[in-house]
Amino acid sequence: MKSTGLVVEYNPFHNGHLFHAEQARKQTNTDVIIAVMSGNFLQRGEPSIVSKWARTKMALQAGIDLVIELPYAFAVQNAEKFAFGSISILNAMGCHFFCFGSESGEINEFSNTLEAIEKRKNEYESTIKELMKSGISYPTALSQSFNKLELQEHKNVDLTKPNNILGYHYMKANRSLQNPMKAVTIKRKNANYHDEEFSSSTIASATSIRKATFNSNQTLDEIKQYVPETTFNVLQDYLTETQSFHNWDLYWPYLQYRLLSTTEKELTEIYEIEEGIEYRLKREAKDANSFQDFMEKVKTKRYTWTRIQRMCVHILTNTKKIEMFAHHNQIEYLRLLGMTEKGKSYLNQIKKDLEFPLISKLSSIPNHIVELDIRAAAIYSQGLPNPFRQKLLKAEYSQPPYVFK
Amino acid sequence: MKSTGLVVEYNPFHNGHLFHAEQARKQTNTDVIIAVMSGNFLQRGEPSIVSKWARTKMALQAGIDLVIELPYAFAVQNAEKFAFGSISILNAMGCHFFCFGSESGEINEFSNTLEAIEKRKNEYESTIKELMKSGISYPTALSQSFNKLELQEHKNVDLTKPNNILGYHYMKANRSLQNPMKAVTIKRKNANYHDEEFSSSTIASATSIRKATFNSNQTLDEIKQYVPETTFNVLQDYLTETQSFHNWDLYWPYLQYRLLSTTEKELTEIYEIEEGIEYRLKREAKDANSFQDFMEKVKTKRYTWTRIQRMCVHILTNTKKIEMFAHHNQIEYLRLLGMTEKGKSYLNQIKKDLEFPLISKLSSIPNHIVELDIRAAAIYSQGLPNPFRQKLLKAEYSQPPYVFK
Repeated sequence: MKSTGLVVEYNPFHNGHLFHAEQARKQTNTDVIIAVMSGNFLQRGEPSIVSKWARTKMALQAGIDLVIELPYAFAVQNAEKFAFGSISILNAMGCHFFCFGSESGEINEFSNTLEAIEKRKNEYESTIKELMKSGISYPTALSQSFNKLELQEHKNVDLTKPNNILGYHYMKANRSLQNPMKAVTIKRKNANYHDEEFSSSTIASATSIRKATFNSNQTLDEIKQYVPETTFNVLQDYLTETQSFHNWDLYWPYLQYRLLSTTEKELTEIYEIEEGIEYRLKREAKDANSFQDFMEKVKTKRYTWTRIQRMCVHILTNTKKIEMFAHHNQIEYLRLLGMTEKGKSYLNQIKKDLEFPLISKLSSIPNHIVELDIRAAAIYSQGLPNPFRQKLLKAEYSQPPYVFK
Repeated sequence: MKSTGLVVEYNPFHNGHLFHAEQARKQTNTDVIIAVMSGNFLQRGEPSIVSKWARTKMALQAGIDLVIELPYAFAVQNAEKFAFGSISILNAMGCHFFCFGSESGEINEFSNTLEAIEKRKNEYESTIKELMKSGISYPTALSQSFNKLELQEHKNVDLTKPNNILGYHYMKANRSLQNPMKAVTIKRKNANYHDEEFSSSTIASATSIRKATFNSNQTLDEIKQYVPETTFNVLQDYLTETQSFHNWDLYWPYLQYRLLSTTEKELTEIYEIEEGIEYRLKREAKDANSFQDFMEKVKTKRYTWTRIQRMCVHILTNTKKIEMFAHHNQIEYLRLLGMTEKGKSYLNQIKKDLEFPLISKLSSIPNHIVELDIRAAAIYSQGLPNPFRQKLLKAEYSQPPYVFK
């Protein structure tokens, strides 16, 4: 059996994701689709609107065969580390292909850019660093450096587009592993990554779907046309059960509490907290009325909104530099969240060759290895009132991988 | 002008407190009554039902002339350290007398016991330590040691009674300062310290009043006969404004969050966390549905309920051993919460002789000195929903001492 890997967050799974998964299967002509999916906290420094278990259900019901969790140590990270963790997992799962959506849609553009940059790697990276020192954000520095070095011999990919940046990092990560997987890209349809409004009749960005979800006042009719029925039902069930989707508002009291009860010195032990931003964070926590208010008060030119949000997640989960450094250089395990019957057969086929332990129950592995994931799941559950909080908290330890037939 | 000091929590101020204050004034025949009052977290390891500001108002309206905050470093402590901090502050405020309620009511009984123990101090203290090692709680160990040493030459005070224990420690603290103040004790009327039910028509324990307050379903009629009208009005206003009195239930989500997001190793840095209880606390935090449930799961013979509650307060406020050790051996400041006109005149009289800075605005003093108090106040405010949370949080920095005319 052959397999194709996807890097996903599915927050929530929508028609664009369905299109991508179907195209991936078609273009690579493989038997099994494997998704490496962020857990409860996402790359942009946000809680997912529903738990990783609910999102796994959506994925399996829509045709994904295996869902593996991207550990916290890679999930709440900049594009480069996020990509490295994701690609390492897909490779460890024995994928023959990996397939990503991009604004470009041309895999050659990515290869050209990658090769051009690799040739003048040191120069390129020091230019990025220099630009960032002057206060420019990472994405802008990336594309400006590229232009500055006049690397454009062939047709290159536009590194100002968010999905192109991710794709570039997937390609780079795959290259760092000696290109074990063949890369395929699919041009994204209709929706732009950051779109907040609906613009097509069936495809919409996850951002706009989430926005409609939170504005919906307990009915989800507005998003019906943009998501598979299976997603719709999972979301509806989640809302019925817990009365709430997750967003930063639910965690703001905890973040504020954490900031108010932590000294500046302790804050500097937290991953990504540096350059004195701890003073700013603590000062503004006192006066902010909400997460949005806090972010607006804290924001500076120096840091992107996303980067500050990631800091906030690390503060919330009390993830320290020393802990992150111990785990983010290499994957250490493969945590199975769910599978179809076909996925199960595939697993049986590759099991004996796996380089890393496959975790299906937490009790089967020493706790310190998965500590960051357990903690993130525990904190995520804290956003809900009881009894849902306790139920979700326990799921982390007791929930076996979903099997979809 | 002469002054008499009282050690109080006023949680809330009730008729028993009024009786005590009036008796204190009468028996010592002084001009000014000074209360040293715990802040938002109390000796038994609980949040006060209303903020220190509201409790200051109750005190001033009922005839107390000056209210000084007992710093967190002394307030959330065992009887000995609590007494030492309180008596040091009353002494620093120039009190000529201090007056405490007791089950005994006979000051000679206290002096006899104190002298008898002081004579055989080392032997006495090592007996207490030994008894506690065998798993006996502190109050029991105290009175058992006393009996064991056969110290009863004269009539002694019964050290199994909670207010007698406190009184004994006040006397001991005063003695350690070379007895600068004259001690007076008043026999407590009717209510026992831990009474949960009402037993008299006008005097009831603060415990029973708090219980009725929380069971009251937004009307306070049941406690009306046990508190001065001024207290009743302050409580009513607080409830109208914030919709809630404070108890551990409001802080349980934060405590659970803190325990779930803190490693065992980090927990051992917290004051009073030792002997491996950090494992127990973390384990039970996962399964508990409420603070009560948590306490019942954590409780062992070894520790009194109160001692575990104090640990919980220190975890909640992230108060570390190193911080506490830096502050709990000597008072460093006198924080003024409120005064009457008479209290103000007294202050003007003693001001020039004060050994410690008198704080009436936080901005007038280096933050690190009052850091534990600021943090405790910030965490206390976190129990309320917004906008009350932000209002109370700001009060800590902006509220000048109340002046009651």
